Amino acid sequence: MALRGPIFRLLRSQLGHTHQQSRAQSVAVLGAPFSRGQKKRGVEHGPKVIRDAGLIERLSSLDYSVHDFGDLSFHYPEKDEPYMDVNFPLSVGGANKMLAGAVSGAVGAGHTVVMLGGDHSLALGSAAGHARQCPDLCLIWVDAHPDLNTPMSSPSGNFHGQPVTFMLKELQGKVPEIRGFSWVKPFLSSRDLVYIGLRDVDPGEYQIMKALGIQYFSMRDIDRLGIQRVMEVTFDHLLARKQRPIHLSFDIDSFDPSLAPATGTPVNGGLTYREGIYITEEIHNTGLLSVMDLVEVNPVLGNSREATEATASLAVDVIASCLGQTREGAHMSIDAIPSDKKDTEQLCL
Amino acid sequence: MALRGPIFRLLRSQLGHTHQQSRAQSVAVLGAPFSRGQKKRGVEHGPKVIRDAGLIERLSSLDYSVHDFGDLSFHYPEKDEPYMDVNFPLSVGGANKMLAGAVSGAVGAGHTVVMLGGDHSLALGSAAGHARQCPDLCLIWVDAHPDLNTPMSSPSGNFHGQPVTFMLKELQGKVPEIRGFSWVKPFLSSRDLVYIGLRDVDPGEYQIMKALGIQYFSMRDIDRLGIQRVMEVTFDHLLARKQRPIHLSFDIDSFDPSLAPATGTPVNGGLTYREGIYITEEIHNTGLLSVMDLVEVNPVLGNSREATEATASLAVDVIASCLGQTREGAHMSIDAIPSDKKDTEQLCL
Amino acid sequence: MALRGPIFRLLRSQLGHTHQQSRAQSVAVLGAPFSRGQKKRGVEHGPKVIRDAGLIERLSSLDYSVHDFGDLSFHYPEKDEPYMDVNFPLSVGGANKMLAGAVSGAVGAGHTVVMLGGDHSLALGSAAGHARQCPDLCLIWVDAHPDLNTPMSSPSGNFHGQPVTFMLKELQGKVPEIRGFSWVKPFLSSRDLVYIGLRDVDPGEYQIMKALGIQYFSMRDIDRLGIQRVMEVTFDHLLARKQRPIHLSFDIDSFDPSLAPATGTPVNGGLTYREGIYITEEIHNTGLLSVMDLVEVNPVLGNSREATEATASLAVDVIASCLGQTREGAHMSIDAIPSDKKDTEQLCL
Repeated sequence: MALRGPIFRLLRSQLGHTHQQSRAQSVAVLGAPFSRGQKKRGVEHGPKVIRDAGLIERLSSLDYSVHDFGDLSFHYPEKDEPYMDVNFPLSVGGANKMLAGAVSGAVGAGHTVVMLGGDHSLALGSAAGHARQCPDLCLIWVDAHPDLNTPMSSPSGNFHGQPVTFMLKELQGKVPEIRGFSWVKPFLSSRDLVYIGLRDVDPGEYQIMKALGIQYFSMRDIDRLGIQRVMEVTFDHLLARKQRPIHLSFDIDSFDPSLAPATGTPVNGGLTYREGIYITEEIHNTGLLSVMDLVEVNPVLGNSREATEATASLAVDVIASCLGQTREGAHMSIDAIPSDKKDTEQLCL
Repeated sequence: MALRGPIFRLLRSQLGHTHQQSRAQSVAVLGAPFSRGQKKRGVEHGPKVIRDAGLIERLSSLDYSVHDFGDLSFHYPEKDEPYMDVNFPLSVGGANKMLAGAVSGAVGAGHTVVMLGGDHSLALGSAAGHARQCPDLCLIWVDAHPDLNTPMSSPSGNFHGQPVTFMLKELQGKVPEIRGFSWVKPFLSSRDLVYIGLRDVDPGEYQIMKALGIQYFSMRDIDRLGIQRVMEVTFDHLLARKQRPIHLSFDIDSFDPSLAPATGTPVNGGLTYREGIYITEEIHNTGLLSVMDLVEVNPVLGNSREATEATASLAVDVIASCLGQTREGAHMSIDAIPSDKKDTEQLCL
Repeated sequence: MALRGPIFRLLRSQLGHTHQQSRAQSVAVLGAPFSRGQKKRGVEHGPKVIRDAGLIERLSSLDYSVHDFGDLSFHYPEKDEPYMDVNFPLSVGGANKMLAGAVSGAVGAGHTVVMLGGDHSLALGSAAGHARQCPDLCLIWVDAHPDLNTPMSSPSGNFHGQPVTFMLKELQGKVPEIRGFSWVKPFLSSRDLVYIGLRDVDPGEYQIMKALGIQYFSMRDIDRLGIQRVMEVTFDHLLARKQRPIHLSFDIDSFDPSLAPATGTPVNGGLTYREGIYITEEIHNTGLLSVMDLVEVNPVLGNSREATEATASLAVDVIASCLGQTREGAHMSIDAIPSDKKDTEQLCL
């Protein structure tokens, strides 16, 4: 790019200024190759296929300093019997404990964190670790499912359908103590959570959502309101009182199965590509994203290599869009919003 | 599902109450394996593939008492020459007469009726039978085509492009007398009809729509207004003066061909999955659905087994959504609307 | 179609009147089998596959007098070295010069012109020729890319990413003189241009768009505003001060790659079929369309015959919709808008 003339000189000087701001930002990528939160093997390869689809190069091109911390190594106890409706409680509890420590450390070191799952059970550890550094975080959960079953209500016994339950202060005392989970303390008020994309809600989940008055946007709500209004209400709900760090937990199955076929629990009628990107653009534009999970990419479940690659490539687009990739150009943020990380750090520490 | 604690006890008691209401409802499923309203064989297998896709189990899971009356057995005269632009007039007239009797009987017995086609010519019999019990019914016709040709104007001679013509009081005397149709008396005012999804309209059809001032929403109108507004205007038009039974005639070709490939006259640019489900959710929410047709699933025309199964599965989703399946959860209608059937019956009888 | 009765007689008399109006219109189809504006061979077959998909028959059925002038024969100099970041400057300049003459002649002869590319470099010649007859034209550019790089900023050196730059008066003097382009004089003010569908914008392009205040609608804008509002603002911007001829330059890659796979630079998250058709319906409804380009259909790049045919068929739908094909029926324009061509001619001459 060789630009000349007064217009371009003016623009270049603005550009240089913004460059310096964005160089201040660093992103930590953490892989969590874990699949015992559900029964379909393969989702533990999610971190690898998302990296293979070009994640690190893409983020680097956005002018971040990218630190790829590789994959966590989880330990699996030999004996790990189900407890009530939770399968592999020791494995799930232990993996999440390790992940919580890693996320907490990365946030504490000043990184914006991208956690690559693995199944959605990992959101418990990721958000819990985040909350250690930023106790006032809020949670945006983009998913076909609310993952709000209890160890008593789960139809499947899969913990990836339960992690939110263990986060919520209002459910403290309603959830039994489970081996492997003694480290978990609820850290989130139900008013600090918004769901987007729901379309497969179990009866027990629906009851909790209604009883606690959780703000959610099902696909029907998106049909009614449009994705722009959904995001406005989401931010009004979470950020109107004060600016604070956002934890985004993004399940790839929020997208329509035609876009993200390589996943374990697809449900028809999901987000379009453009809706998914719009959500993440809006979250980026708040300047408050602190940690994000990208989970449930399962390369074993695509019917073809193309299906798997499309799903992984979509995951990369989602993450890049969360971190400032735009559809309008402005790759270098000419009209930059105030430096994101700085605001977030003030809120956290 | 084992729920405990005061929140859950409260919810369960509400739940039980609602259960009793919904158990009062019963659904009759009627198969109509008829294909002589058009020229492509295969649509007579529609009832079988829709049942094979799990219709009865799905409706049962919605807490209906489901009565599957099996398939009607139609009789075909040996000689059935075309009359003007109507092919197989005796077969079409006879099948519709039989269907009208069956639908009338099922409605009279207190069922909500699901008629599985077969081609769309069957809507004449279905709606005529419905009108015998509920003379003040209104008709919502979801289709790529208005099926409003006359025996003089039809480009194809297929009666599945003409059934609405025979329903309309305003066209009485404009339509010639046809052998096999002597039992038909127009029963619908053009103001009691709304089209949704049109995108392939013949010149003669357009002229009638305009001349009679029929309320319609083409795909262009849906693009302009959005599906939410379309449904609002639909109900304003049909129900503002009084609540009355709804006859829904749903042609699977209203959906985009990418979603419903196994059908006889696909047209690009159709409804999305979410728009189709939104339409049916809204119709369910009126509490006034009395009879619905689901027609034009033709398993012979899918390019693959997957294509056919996707089309049949979509048909099941449409029917289930008409009958209360939701995307939000509330599978058991905690905040239930007033008992539907009761209102409908008051209006009919 | 044989209609009888007073309603139909009334309608038929209106119809005949409109018929005579529309017969006054003639369409010229010009093929431009050129591919040296980019590096992927195959796009020179665009005119053939679009014709093979039934273009001429479709336009004829819309009651136009269709004049197919066949394909232009371009001459390629033996030596054609790159100049700065422009590959094949003599070929590109020469082909566009020839095309400009052809378009100017066809517009001067009273035709509405449909130019079939070929790659998008051809828009320079097409619009320049149009401007010779209609100096006050405005330009609607529907594309994933703004094609607004300069010979200094182009990342690829492909001229199909630069044609708009050479049209804009504001960039006169900022662009170097290139062999083969001496005939080109900028003819368009940046305020007379609107982009629709952008989602892959190079940094240099973004800088020019912002510096010149060009009105554009990225896919994000379409997500926010909806396509209806986008078209309203487009026409407000271009036509509010005065009615004037529209040049539409439609790149098939504006559509989502799932709809138009056979193209050279596909980008995810594009226009839906319905959005594309809505744009063209609205442009037709202004009565001001004077010249349109349909470019970048590349049959070599479809993964299958179906993919190529779908892309070509989509191109035919776009062109037909620009010229009055509707989704509502009214094939014969009963409630016709004022005779289009006449208005346009008044503005041009």
